[in-house]
Amino acid sequence: MDASELVSRLLRHDRRALARGISLVENAAPELRAIMSGLAPHTGSARTVGLTGPPGVGKSTTSNALVTALRSRGESVAVLAVDPSSPFTGGALLGDRVRMQEHSGDNGVFIRSMASRGHLGGLSWATPHALRLLDAAGFDVLLVETVGVGQAEVDIAAHADTTVVLSAPGMGDAVQAAKAGVLEIADILAVNKADRDGARATVRELRQMVARGEGDADRWKPPVVSTVAESGDGVGELLGRVDAHQEHMRAAGELERRRHRRAREEIEAIALGALRQRLADVRSGAGLDTLADEVTSGSSDPYSAADTLLDALER
Amino acid sequence: MDASELVSRLLRHDRRALARGISLVENAAPELRAIMSGLAPHTGSARTVGLTGPPGVGKSTTSNALVTALRSRGESVAVLAVDPSSPFTGGALLGDRVRMQEHSGDNGVFIRSMASRGHLGGLSWATPHALRLLDAAGFDVLLVETVGVGQAEVDIAAHADTTVVLSAPGMGDAVQAAKAGVLEIADILAVNKADRDGARATVRELRQMVARGEGDADRWKPPVVSTVAESGDGVGELLGRVDAHQEHMRAAGELERRRHRRAREEIEAIALGALRQRLADVRSGAGLDTLADEVTSGSSDPYSAADTLLDALER
Repeated sequence: MDASELVSRLLRHDRRALARGISLVENAAPELRAIMSGLAPHTGSARTVGLTGPPGVGKSTTSNALVTALRSRGESVAVLAVDPSSPFTGGALLGDRVRMQEHSGDNGVFIRSMASRGHLGGLSWATPHALRLLDAAGFDVLLVETVGVGQAEVDIAAHADTTVVLSAPGMGDAVQAAKAGVLEIADILAVNKADRDGARATVRELRQMVARGEGDADRWKPPVVSTVAESGDGVGELLGRVDAHQEHMRAAGELERRRHRRAREEIEAIALGALRQRLADVRSGAGLDTLADEVTSGSSDPYSAADTLLDALER
Repeated sequence: MDASELVSRLLRHDRRALARGISLVENAAPELRAIMSGLAPHTGSARTVGLTGPPGVGKSTTSNALVTALRSRGESVAVLAVDPSSPFTGGALLGDRVRMQEHSGDNGVFIRSMASRGHLGGLSWATPHALRLLDAAGFDVLLVETVGVGQAEVDIAAHADTTVVLSAPGMGDAVQAAKAGVLEIADILAVNKADRDGARATVRELRQMVARGEGDADRWKPPVVSTVAESGDGVGELLGRVDAHQEHMRAAGELERRRHRRAREEIEAIALGALRQRLADVRSGAGLDTLADEVTSGSSDPYSAADTLLDALER
């Protein structure tokens, strides 16, 4: 399947072409350039929703419940589960197949996990690429699920129109998430496993945190929603909040601004990736190993060594 | 204090110069180039120990206890507490002053937290710079403490000769850490708060995980140590394991290899930072905003836009 065939198949909603496209993204394949060029006129209509939160909080159960809710409204959904830690564990997420089964035979659902195989630029580069493929393939809603706590998550959430941050009672997660800066990227806060002890306290705590935020009347205040994703309780309300957030963003011109900002970052990430690659290409020619030896022995410093590397780039 | 004065003061162990140097690192100040060049011949003798693990596990208590143990052996210690999430929270770590007090008046101890103020390249760039300053200032041991779970932590741990990964009973941390790939960077595993319920189970679980790792007879097997950092229990053993690990590394030539690899990464990070900066300099000239609009409207794709940006770089 060459690039132009993949593009035309993708535009016909071909699932095999889509799976192949995402594998190309994981492997940072050179064909992506031609593919992205062919898809460009057909992107921009999907709504993206980011789902994030610490491990064990129920992200995949929640995204499953959201898929069911969206399907019952007749909307098609793609779920992209992104694992920022995978350069180390080196595999796709568990439970992927289990989840696929639940919606198998439904052509309006596509679920796929994505790992960054340690390639240059990593997931900040790969996530928007995969979203473009899913968007061009015609899905109405793209759910981006991320694992982990911290910067990687924050980076990936930046690719969504609406970011839902999940917590659960009794894990101290709310506070930890706040510490890790995750709260600051939340458009909606969901307390999952809300049938457990301590759920009310977690909701209250989060509401207080939100209330302490800057008080701009026009600004969207992240609502705090209780869910029991396993039974589906509260998921309808969560989806309603997502709709409301996207409506608010659209009306305020913020949706456009976010997408513009994302396009800027995407362009810069690709340009930087190309520069990284050029640097990697001249590494041995510039004698990086010798330079590293000079730095460890103290006969040179890292800046002078970097200059030598950059000189090689310009030659 | 200009660069050459800062260098000569640093080499005389001047604490104010050291504090100023680290602030320059946080702010990615241009003077660093001259400073690193002046310090280069005086680096390479400190041993670095990384301390990492999820929030609440007792990292600062453990590093405090290690400081006390090292001081009683007559070794000088600098503690660098790195907060990868700080581009969002924007501040130094809490408890910094409290900790300073405990060792105040002891010229053989220096404690400092460092935030990356969102500058290009972030902490992967800043951490080795700060370690160079502390090394040149003559500290025997450098403890690098990091907050958070996940990639940022893994990156920072890569700067240490020996990495200690902390867990605590009953937080499910051991399993989470394994998931996040943190276990794979551990040279030593410490179960802190070992006087709590479930400590033995955590130790057992970790030992099983280690045992499941690749079985190469020559390879260092991460030992699992129980500590109660608050009372100092087990901290002597932990330090003994650190010594043993460094001895093993030295004998196997691995210390040299790690330091060589770090120097390579440091050089490349600086070169890449310079390229990022060049890219940032041509952004508006190349019309990045127009390019982003073209991409969001679908009239261009991110690769073609990145090409335009790169062309501007070469002009």
